[in-house]
Amino acid sequence: MSETLQIALAQCNFLVGDIVGNCDRIIAEAATARTRGADMVLFSELALTGYPPEDLLLRPSLQPRIEEALHRIAASSSGIAIVVGFPWREDGRLYNCAGIWSEGACLGRYAKQCLPNYQVFDEQRYFSAGYQPLVVDYRGHRLGLTICEDIWHQGPIDQCVGAGAELVLNLNASPYHIGKHDERVSLLKEHTSRLGVPILYVNQVGGQDELVFDGASFAMAGNGDVVLQMAEWNECQADVCWNGSLLTAVSANAALPESELASLYQALVTGVRDYVNKNRFKGVVLGLSGGIDSALTLAIAVDALGADRVEAVMMPFAYTSDMSKEDAALQATKMGVQYRSISIAPMYDAFMESLAEKFAGMARDTTEENLQSRCRGVLLMAISNKTGYMVLTTGNKSEMAVGYATLYGDMAGGYGAIKDVYKTRVFDLANYRNSIEPVIPQRVIDRPPSAELAPGQVDQDSLPPYPVLDAILESYIEQDMSAEAIIASGFSREDVMRVVRLVDINEYKRRQAPVGVRVTRRGFGRDRRYPLTNGWKAGV
Amino acid sequence: MSETLQIALAQCNFLVGDIVGNCDRIIAEAATARTRGADMVLFSELALTGYPPEDLLLRPSLQPRIEEALHRIAASSSGIAIVVGFPWREDGRLYNCAGIWSEGACLGRYAKQCLPNYQVFDEQRYFSAGYQPLVVDYRGHRLGLTICEDIWHQGPIDQCVGAGAELVLNLNASPYHIGKHDERVSLLKEHTSRLGVPILYVNQVGGQDELVFDGASFAMAGNGDVVLQMAEWNECQADVCWNGSLLTAVSANAALPESELASLYQALVTGVRDYVNKNRFKGVVLGLSGGIDSALTLAIAVDALGADRVEAVMMPFAYTSDMSKEDAALQATKMGVQYRSISIAPMYDAFMESLAEKFAGMARDTTEENLQSRCRGVLLMAISNKTGYMVLTTGNKSEMAVGYATLYGDMAGGYGAIKDVYKTRVFDLANYRNSIEPVIPQRVIDRPPSAELAPGQVDQDSLPPYPVLDAILESYIEQDMSAEAIIASGFSREDVMRVVRLVDINEYKRRQAPVGVRVTRRGFGRDRRYPLTNGWKAGV
Repeated sequence: MSETLQIALAQCNFLVGDIVGNCDRIIAEAATARTRGADMVLFSELALTGYPPEDLLLRPSLQPRIEEALHRIAASSSGIAIVVGFPWREDGRLYNCAGIWSEGACLGRYAKQCLPNYQVFDEQRYFSAGYQPLVVDYRGHRLGLTICEDIWHQGPIDQCVGAGAELVLNLNASPYHIGKHDERVSLLKEHTSRLGVPILYVNQVGGQDELVFDGASFAMAGNGDVVLQMAEWNECQADVCWNGSLLTAVSANAALPESELASLYQALVTGVRDYVNKNRFKGVVLGLSGGIDSALTLAIAVDALGADRVEAVMMPFAYTSDMSKEDAALQATKMGVQYRSISIAPMYDAFMESLAEKFAGMARDTTEENLQSRCRGVLLMAISNKTGYMVLTTGNKSEMAVGYATLYGDMAGGYGAIKDVYKTRVFDLANYRNSIEPVIPQRVIDRPPSAELAPGQVDQDSLPPYPVLDAILESYIEQDMSAEAIIASGFSREDVMRVVRLVDINEYKRRQAPVGVRVTRRGFGRDRRYPLTNGWKAGV
Repeated sequence: MSETLQIALAQCNFLVGDIVGNCDRIIAEAATARTRGADMVLFSELALTGYPPEDLLLRPSLQPRIEEALHRIAASSSGIAIVVGFPWREDGRLYNCAGIWSEGACLGRYAKQCLPNYQVFDEQRYFSAGYQPLVVDYRGHRLGLTICEDIWHQGPIDQCVGAGAELVLNLNASPYHIGKHDERVSLLKEHTSRLGVPILYVNQVGGQDELVFDGASFAMAGNGDVVLQMAEWNECQADVCWNGSLLTAVSANAALPESELASLYQALVTGVRDYVNKNRFKGVVLGLSGGIDSALTLAIAVDALGADRVEAVMMPFAYTSDMSKEDAALQATKMGVQYRSISIAPMYDAFMESLAEKFAGMARDTTEENLQSRCRGVLLMAISNKTGYMVLTTGNKSEMAVGYATLYGDMAGGYGAIKDVYKTRVFDLANYRNSIEPVIPQRVIDRPPSAELAPGQVDQDSLPPYPVLDAILESYIEQDMSAEAIIASGFSREDVMRVVRLVDINEYKRRQAPVGVRVTRRGFGRDRRYPLTNGWKAGV
């Protein structure tokens, strides 16, 4: 009879590229796990580099840095086996690897077989695929290694179990999107029901540019029961025991967020917090307009960074309603952030006067609206430059999709908190946040959305109602439906063709947009690579 | 004895995504070739979609559109065989294909085997690889088909010749970089010296977002002689004859540009022209500062679009020298473009006054310099919005690399003419352009470069001399050398570490930069995918 193994799952927030720092962290976490009595500790995919390292993988000094880190890990593996992911170059090829170190020796190295090259993933840009399983004998147990995408297919895990694995370790860097955790659990259940083998699923946590990783690592017994569930959005460790036939939890289960909305809100908070902190910004500054987008963004920023690292600026003009001014001040006070109001009228007037000769005889159009927005953008950027606070942008996905945003105006900034959140969901999130503590004035939620760039302007003057708009957008962008298919699903041809055309022609704006938290299956970042110069005619 | 074949190479400038338009074009070109007596006409890789179509390849209506176009091509293939590239979906997989149609029938379809997934290429994101050669019997000749990257490896062409091909047709969408044409000729010589088989190399021409395609299609006899050379940068057709043993030119050879610099200049002109025209902008507007970058950009713009579609704006401030004002006016007059001068002082002052309370007690820093630049950016964007002229940006690669550029300031615009041209080469290009006709005032070339954002400021106050800077940048960016290797190659540690650090920390600016012509092996677009959040420490 083989002894019982206590295995720790370490769910960490690594900094991409900081190999030395990540290695320090891994060694410290291993020591903690050993203190708790763990025999083995699992880290996530490419833990040494963080994920995704992108073109850092092409740097010539990568391999010596990795080798040095692995020497240190080997030297720290006495009394506890360390399972960790790292890139590895051999015979001129780079592999996405995982290895097991114990008592100073490497017990085996596995190369990922399935390399995702879709959506946000570019792994075939960097890696060659492995082709064989790794099953390691450790204290009388046969443990199989797999990495992330491997488990989204049948081949590698079947092969691993075929090679004798009794317990499968799966190292992940699996980005969040709404509903992702349930997909992972269902997927693993398919494997356990087919193979009867238990699986340990360990994921990284935290934000990296557009991607947020929810963590939510878990352990599934051979019968498909989730015996251990770890937290979403937090770094943590937890242990399971494996006696060769039974997988049991040692640590208590974490409570997952009570709803998809709660989880989504945490995703946005995590994305903002990690972008700002990992890039060492002192804080953030944002334009608070009295509208719902900036109101929600302010709440996210305060929840991410604390009120003392957030500054809000109201920048009124002739079309700014009193309601907007009152509500902005009200929320800023309520949330305890630094707040000031700076009118854009003097700048706007100076521009228009200087352009009067050039614009003589030409009609008023969106130029004047964009100019208002750009005066605001320049003001915020000046504050940012002077104070070291990053500008947080407030645009939502519906706007980014149809181009209802001004380049170098409201699009100016370092990071977008809600750029992948449709307007209808912005309302849901505002209500959700208020249900915990009412911080957003109710009037901001109830009033008809308006950019307030012209007298009496409301968004619905020129766009379909948001529920219609968002449904069309989701069909087109996330479900990749053709215009004809969307029409056939029950929308008016006029609405669909107008929306789809707006999405297509506004790619140039999105290309210059700041990065921001990705929370859907298809964000506007690495997910969606459309040409700017483009003769495609949608739906014709 | 088989009859002699007259084969036309058609070097076209397709519009990405415009399948119907490209198909019309292919049919019209085939008719022209037939009129000239050609038996067969070759088009470039993915001619039906243009290259690169990027995520348009994922649209569900792609396949029916392609099928419809191929029906039309089949129907147009009487009296002339048409060889054309297109994407093709079969059994749930998408292939990068080429096919031959003759007298209404498809004689064969080939799927590209080598799918580039490096630099700017993402073909494995879309395509599955083919695995077998295609050799078609046509009027007694055995013709082999290959596509672009296939020929950069030995496998596919060896296989093709092994399967009996006596003449290899190679369809390309091969983007330009400095010196690329010579690389292609050398490469094909390796094949002909090994295999003794003649090769017809047909390439597309024109600009597509960041990429420019130089055309320069050619025919190489089995002994390695280039028997036909087609023009760079222009659409054209030319014919060769193949009698089963001898490949000869029917058309006259085109003169290639007399120097690398001449070709580079044409690349920039082509990139600007096609971006502006394919996106249907009326013209371009740019800020003319009296410095060499905007001077060269103005020359490129006029050569691309004609003087009547170009507007130059001088936007002086307190630090603008008289020399700058005089030289800007001089060049604008010389080149016959619309020109005006608008001082940014009123806007700048309005911003500073409105920010006085916020900035009280804080020292002057780069905030004030950025503000000048942003006032200029907003002015140009207002003119752009009102007139439909796109803002052409004037930043060079040295600046983009080290972050000597202002987001939403001089970086505001739709397209960058020289964003992939190092400063030292900007001087070369200015001299080159002046050698044809002196349009750039000599003083602009001779004076020390300055951003004129502070009193007496010159670039070399805070950067190494440009020849040193550019050499370090090229080693780091294009040759992927580590900081240590660059130091070892003969630069001071201080210079290298400073430059490399500036490159690393300014990724966030480049991410929001407009697209622009790519002319090196590694531009700052799809070529170089670095994380913004990044703990990599260069050279440590």
